[in-house]
Amino acid sequence: MSTVTPLHRAALDPPRPALDTDVAAAAQQLAAALAATAVERDRRGGHAHAERELIRGSGLLALSVPQAYGGLGAGWPTVLHTVRTLAAADSALAHVYAFHHLQVASVLLYGDAEQQQRLLGATVQRRLFWGNALNPLDTTLIATRTEGGWRLDGTKRYASGSVGSDRLTLSAHVRVAEGERGALLIGNLPTGAAGVEVREDWDSFGQRQTDSGSVRFEAAFLPDADVLQAPGAQATPRMTLRPLVSQLIMANLYLGLAQAAFEAARGYLHERARPWFASGVARAVDDPYVQHRSGELWLKVRAAQLAADAAAQRFQQALDRGDAVTAGERAEAAIAAFEAKALAHHAGIEVPAQVFELIGAGATSTRLGFDRFWRNARVHTLHDPVDYKLRDIGRWQLLGQPPEPTPYS
Amino acid sequence: MSTVTPLHRAALDPPRPALDTDVAAAAQQLAAALAATAVERDRRGGHAHAERELIRGSGLLALSVPQAYGGLGAGWPTVLHTVRTLAAADSALAHVYAFHHLQVASVLLYGDAEQQQRLLGATVQRRLFWGNALNPLDTTLIATRTEGGWRLDGTKRYASGSVGSDRLTLSAHVRVAEGERGALLIGNLPTGAAGVEVREDWDSFGQRQTDSGSVRFEAAFLPDADVLQAPGAQATPRMTLRPLVSQLIMANLYLGLAQAAFEAARGYLHERARPWFASGVARAVDDPYVQHRSGELWLKVRAAQLAADAAAQRFQQALDRGDAVTAGERAEAAIAAFEAKALAHHAGIEVPAQVFELIGAGATSTRLGFDRFWRNARVHTLHDPVDYKLRDIGRWQLLGQPPEPTPYS
Amino acid sequence: MSTVTPLHRAALDPPRPALDTDVAAAAQQLAAALAATAVERDRRGGHAHAERELIRGSGLLALSVPQAYGGLGAGWPTVLHTVRTLAAADSALAHVYAFHHLQVASVLLYGDAEQQQRLLGATVQRRLFWGNALNPLDTTLIATRTEGGWRLDGTKRYASGSVGSDRLTLSAHVRVAEGERGALLIGNLPTGAAGVEVREDWDSFGQRQTDSGSVRFEAAFLPDADVLQAPGAQATPRMTLRPLVSQLIMANLYLGLAQAAFEAARGYLHERARPWFASGVARAVDDPYVQHRSGELWLKVRAAQLAADAAAQRFQQALDRGDAVTAGERAEAAIAAFEAKALAHHAGIEVPAQVFELIGAGATSTRLGFDRFWRNARVHTLHDPVDYKLRDIGRWQLLGQPPEPTPYS
Amino acid sequence: MSTVTPLHRAALDPPRPALDTDVAAAAQQLAAALAATAVERDRRGGHAHAERELIRGSGLLALSVPQAYGGLGAGWPTVLHTVRTLAAADSALAHVYAFHHLQVASVLLYGDAEQQQRLLGATVQRRLFWGNALNPLDTTLIATRTEGGWRLDGTKRYASGSVGSDRLTLSAHVRVAEGERGALLIGNLPTGAAGVEVREDWDSFGQRQTDSGSVRFEAAFLPDADVLQAPGAQATPRMTLRPLVSQLIMANLYLGLAQAAFEAARGYLHERARPWFASGVARAVDDPYVQHRSGELWLKVRAAQLAADAAAQRFQQALDRGDAVTAGERAEAAIAAFEAKALAHHAGIEVPAQVFELIGAGATSTRLGFDRFWRNARVHTLHDPVDYKLRDIGRWQLLGQPPEPTPYS
Repeated sequence: MSTVTPLHRAALDPPRPALDTDVAAAAQQLAAALAATAVERDRRGGHAHAERELIRGSGLLALSVPQAYGGLGAGWPTVLHTVRTLAAADSALAHVYAFHHLQVASVLLYGDAEQQQRLLGATVQRRLFWGNALNPLDTTLIATRTEGGWRLDGTKRYASGSVGSDRLTLSAHVRVAEGERGALLIGNLPTGAAGVEVREDWDSFGQRQTDSGSVRFEAAFLPDADVLQAPGAQATPRMTLRPLVSQLIMANLYLGLAQAAFEAARGYLHERARPWFASGVARAVDDPYVQHRSGELWLKVRAAQLAADAAAQRFQQALDRGDAVTAGERAEAAIAAFEAKALAHHAGIEVPAQVFELIGAGATSTRLGFDRFWRNARVHTLHDPVDYKLRDIGRWQLLGQPPEPTPYS
Repeated sequence: MSTVTPLHRAALDPPRPALDTDVAAAAQQLAAALAATAVERDRRGGHAHAERELIRGSGLLALSVPQAYGGLGAGWPTVLHTVRTLAAADSALAHVYAFHHLQVASVLLYGDAEQQQRLLGATVQRRLFWGNALNPLDTTLIATRTEGGWRLDGTKRYASGSVGSDRLTLSAHVRVAEGERGALLIGNLPTGAAGVEVREDWDSFGQRQTDSGSVRFEAAFLPDADVLQAPGAQATPRMTLRPLVSQLIMANLYLGLAQAAFEAARGYLHERARPWFASGVARAVDDPYVQHRSGELWLKVRAAQLAADAAAQRFQQALDRGDAVTAGERAEAAIAAFEAKALAHHAGIEVPAQVFELIGAGATSTRLGFDRFWRNARVHTLHDPVDYKLRDIGRWQLLGQPPEPTPYS
Repeated sequence: MSTVTPLHRAALDPPRPALDTDVAAAAQQLAAALAATAVERDRRGGHAHAERELIRGSGLLALSVPQAYGGLGAGWPTVLHTVRTLAAADSALAHVYAFHHLQVASVLLYGDAEQQQRLLGATVQRRLFWGNALNPLDTTLIATRTEGGWRLDGTKRYASGSVGSDRLTLSAHVRVAEGERGALLIGNLPTGAAGVEVREDWDSFGQRQTDSGSVRFEAAFLPDADVLQAPGAQATPRMTLRPLVSQLIMANLYLGLAQAAFEAARGYLHERARPWFASGVARAVDDPYVQHRSGELWLKVRAAQLAADAAAQRFQQALDRGDAVTAGERAEAAIAAFEAKALAHHAGIEVPAQVFELIGAGATSTRLGFDRFWRNARVHTLHDPVDYKLRDIGRWQLLGQPPEPTPYS
Repeated sequence: MSTVTPLHRAALDPPRPALDTDVAAAAQQLAAALAATAVERDRRGGHAHAERELIRGSGLLALSVPQAYGGLGAGWPTVLHTVRTLAAADSALAHVYAFHHLQVASVLLYGDAEQQQRLLGATVQRRLFWGNALNPLDTTLIATRTEGGWRLDGTKRYASGSVGSDRLTLSAHVRVAEGERGALLIGNLPTGAAGVEVREDWDSFGQRQTDSGSVRFEAAFLPDADVLQAPGAQATPRMTLRPLVSQLIMANLYLGLAQAAFEAARGYLHERARPWFASGVARAVDDPYVQHRSGELWLKVRAAQLAADAAAQRFQQALDRGDAVTAGERAEAAIAAFEAKALAHHAGIEVPAQVFELIGAGATSTRLGFDRFWRNARVHTLHDPVDYKLRDIGRWQLLGQPPEPTPYS
């Protein structure tokens, strides 16, 4: 009678997997510990040694390391969810934590089997904390060929997580001749190596404890064994997945901030806020405009959550394809990540700003520190311009043009 | 070493189920057939007999009917996806189609086993098309107790899909005394029953072929066997799921319109649009502002898609709980549906309006009919005020207060 | 004691001039007459002969003509205010009316004293209605040198007000060789001249009665006496003021539409709207969300009003400088006009769309015709892309870079 | 021939008055002096004694005092323009300055001729700086009748400009019986009076140097001669103008902040910003998205400027009506002020937030202090909820309902 085949509905609606309970609990516990001092540390800025040790002690630095190397072997949806959880408590240390995992990803994407085994094995066994000095657009770090490796000279700025790290990934340009830069190499070395100096010169009004110092290299030695990507190596689609990890980290950080601002406002509304005298209601939460705006703000959070979850799944699918991943699959994962990042950017800027309309002047006390959500989101969302992400999404939708793989896309 | 347990990543990332291929193909084929005449029929308005027969012929009227009664037994995620697909082609007939399924849901939610067997069996076997005359807020239809049933007198306005339908669900208020209304009953009867007259008096500037006429009842007889919910029956949480079907239908309709407008603009940009003389680019699609705005608009579509998919899943979970579904689970499904509807409302209004900034004055020819996306979305999004949905979402987020089950929430 | 000089406050606060009473009354009266049939004529489209005669009969076609030539000699703030008033009643005929004045301005800006005397004198005495065929970007109209003038061949599309006009201004490119276009000339001729044919081929979903047909020229003769700007004449800053008249007309048209939509909603709220059942108020106007959104929408109207008034004043100042007006003064007037147009664009699109949130589904009846505000604004705001106006404003603010004088800026 | 009377155009277009040159220059000079240390003082918070002395030395404290009492006798458009100028440099001290003038207005609106002569004469001669302790909604300050005046006991919180002031206006409720408050009185006394103690307990993340301490009264004596409004005096429309001064001050403060943020971004773009690597342009100011967004942001500033100027004029007109001002005229002035405040609120929040999209991560250095524009605007815009201003504007537009005169409206 019918022209279409009967369906087995059950097959259409699989249960959504819960985030693994233990990891979620560990992240929540760590978040609570960070939250306890987050307002005070935001004011102080600088390096948060004790809190970095809390992160190290949580075991979560091993989360992205494959089980083959002793790690927890979590997928990126799980890793990114922990970033979001921590960001809601302390987005600066969440960044330090997330960028550790970005370096783990770098070893997995660029390194060979021996390097992965050695470096990631040590990461788990010695609980190493990685920092970032890998930014190909910052071209001042020069690698000069020397016996058994490279001599590094120059500086990397905005090196997130570098202060207090154990090991750094880095990019450098090969010296061709005096003042002439050649191909790019990617490597890694111990932060404490001779000739490496990390300066605490990060000075922004937000994300103040991200340890984003400058790393100065003066005749530092990078042995060949620690070169992850040789100069001039052709980038495969798989290798270009690294910036997507970075983009997804941003999305989850912004989202965590939006969630945290929303929750802070909710708590304040219940515990302290008084209704506006002209509202005619007994509690601030009963004000029709407070309810309506809460609904509007929540939708910004919600849209970003859904997009971040979808993008993490899509990224993992691309990663799971291994070396077979195509430029087209990489493009799809990139666009999903950009969608998530743009929606989270919007939520991260707007929600922390607008919650004040709900909670009023009394909520601006520095003791509460509610401005930090906006300051942190405002600084971090400038990592790369959202307008170029919107352009890339537009190009993809209109033209099917994949975003050009760059350190920022 | 680590304080958390290793994970099995695979378990975290199940494949997302593809929509069943046959159903999707049937919906696409039907959509293409409807699209061929949609612009012309939008201009004409009125009843679209031939196109309703196309729908009937597609077999998709049986989609939501359980297999036990001979139907396809699809879950609501699948049914709603077909609504979205059809809405992108012709949102008026998609509404007629969707409201048929809403009546099927009504029989499933309110009717007893005998009624389900008899009415839904006939729906499949005789390919019945259902229309809606169930709106408890419209209280002019009066049921007077009579031998073996009820005598119905009065009118139901805005009865979507009533014109040309085979069978109608309806709500009526029991006559207590002259001019005094009592409890509500819900029933159904053949549209061609004696004393039932459908008037084609729908007159809006959008959704013109939704057959939303007035149904006039004059001494029509509703036998007890066709009363789905007896007067004054206590509504269980499960029975209050019906308005959520309605809300989800709206969300998918608005979303289909937003998608269709975006796609129409994309096509026009490629085929006809010329770059603005001051842009300095050779093709309109290369204009940086066209690309950027396309990215912005796409994000509205994308957020609504993700929310609509999530809400459909959540609704199905509640439905699958059967009579055990609690008020709290109903509330969660309701909020998910409201989130989807509010985001789709926004996308449905904004995308069809703003695509014109991409494609310019030449795209306003009545031959193209690109204004219909906005007109259809503008009319349909007024079904119930979005401001009260935002309020309900806010109440839920701030207070954990479940939305009151009403015909609109 | 004080370090600053006492002020005479009175000098700081001059009274704002009221719009001349007679002109305002005449415009109001004309607007009321047009409004009576606007909904029905919008549906019908085509040429509105009777209503054009009402405009002619009002005497307002002489409004912008200097008193020296028998006109009313109103300043542009006054002329543009009448455009706004008429646009609130019937934006299509307001466009026809406004474009008549744009052609008057063209004679004043491009023509010599003899031409002004002759053409504008006739305009007043014979109550001529001018139409537009002047669009230098449409380069298909060719002027070939011939005895005592030029032979015109080709077509001008989107020639607003051409159908039913008495006289047309036009631009044409001089024929240099077969298929090769040379310099631009600007002229004017009677619409009924031999070889001139106006086709009613305007087919948009809005602004349906703007008489924006195509003008086909076949060996039409343009005598030298009616050439307003000789081929290749160097454009002075004063001559580049014409597109600003056009931009200001748009701004006032969009604004009139926004005002009209707001007023229609206000009327409907009082006369017909019912409160939403969940609102708990007795009248729709008492709904807190209706009040709040009305406030938001009003601010869009208000901002556009203030900017349109300021821009008209600034334009008049530039015009009053006569030939002495500098490129810098022209730039300031242009930016003020763009500010007004961009704000009115926003109000013109948003207010007619969002008022439906205030008034609900019942207000979508085609009998009311409330969708015409949006359709008219949507079509008209595509005259030139708002994104390039925003760019020009940005360039001015960031760089002090004057907008390039073009037919659209 | 024409049905309307010729116009004299000149009469329609009076020159807009330039702000009095000397006052503007004095304000600019003072602004420059404040700007020099504003970033550092924002970080420090607390009382800015030296800068308050700069304000005192400028002579501008006499600006609003009528010439009859030795003041400069400026109108409120002029006074408010100086507030805007100072706010662009240092919005905290601009608030202190503006609230001084609010107290001058209070003496003019509530006081009798003798009080005006005595208090304002002294204000000019002794260069007194006034602070605010007048907030009728804060009902903890109790006045108990005593010989020749009132004994004051209790506290006023958020008393802007109180720290370091010479004189305070205040409101208090008359003690009727133990714990029972009666009618309101308004008075003023020297900040140094016995029993008056100002505490520096202002602790917000923005507007840090507004000296908004708590004023504690312990058996302070308010002589009858310094009671400006006797308990229970009926408020005339003129007396209800005071909150409009306050609202207009807010509007100009927010606007000054928006302007300052825009100018800071412009300066940074020229001096330091580098183009985004993917932009393909040589200078950041040439980026199409930077230009476009600058245009958008400028429009927010511009709309607020126009509304603030219009509201100041409208307020002055109401004030100039003296005791004859009606409730209706007061309502019109109030709505104009609310329009200005709501638009400036929007500009004040959005522009300081979004300029960072133009200037990027490098502009977040704490040395530049660019976050202070947002922090200051965010804190100050919470003075009273913008949602209730939008509601009041909506009520006025829909119902013609005048806003209820309260301390906040």
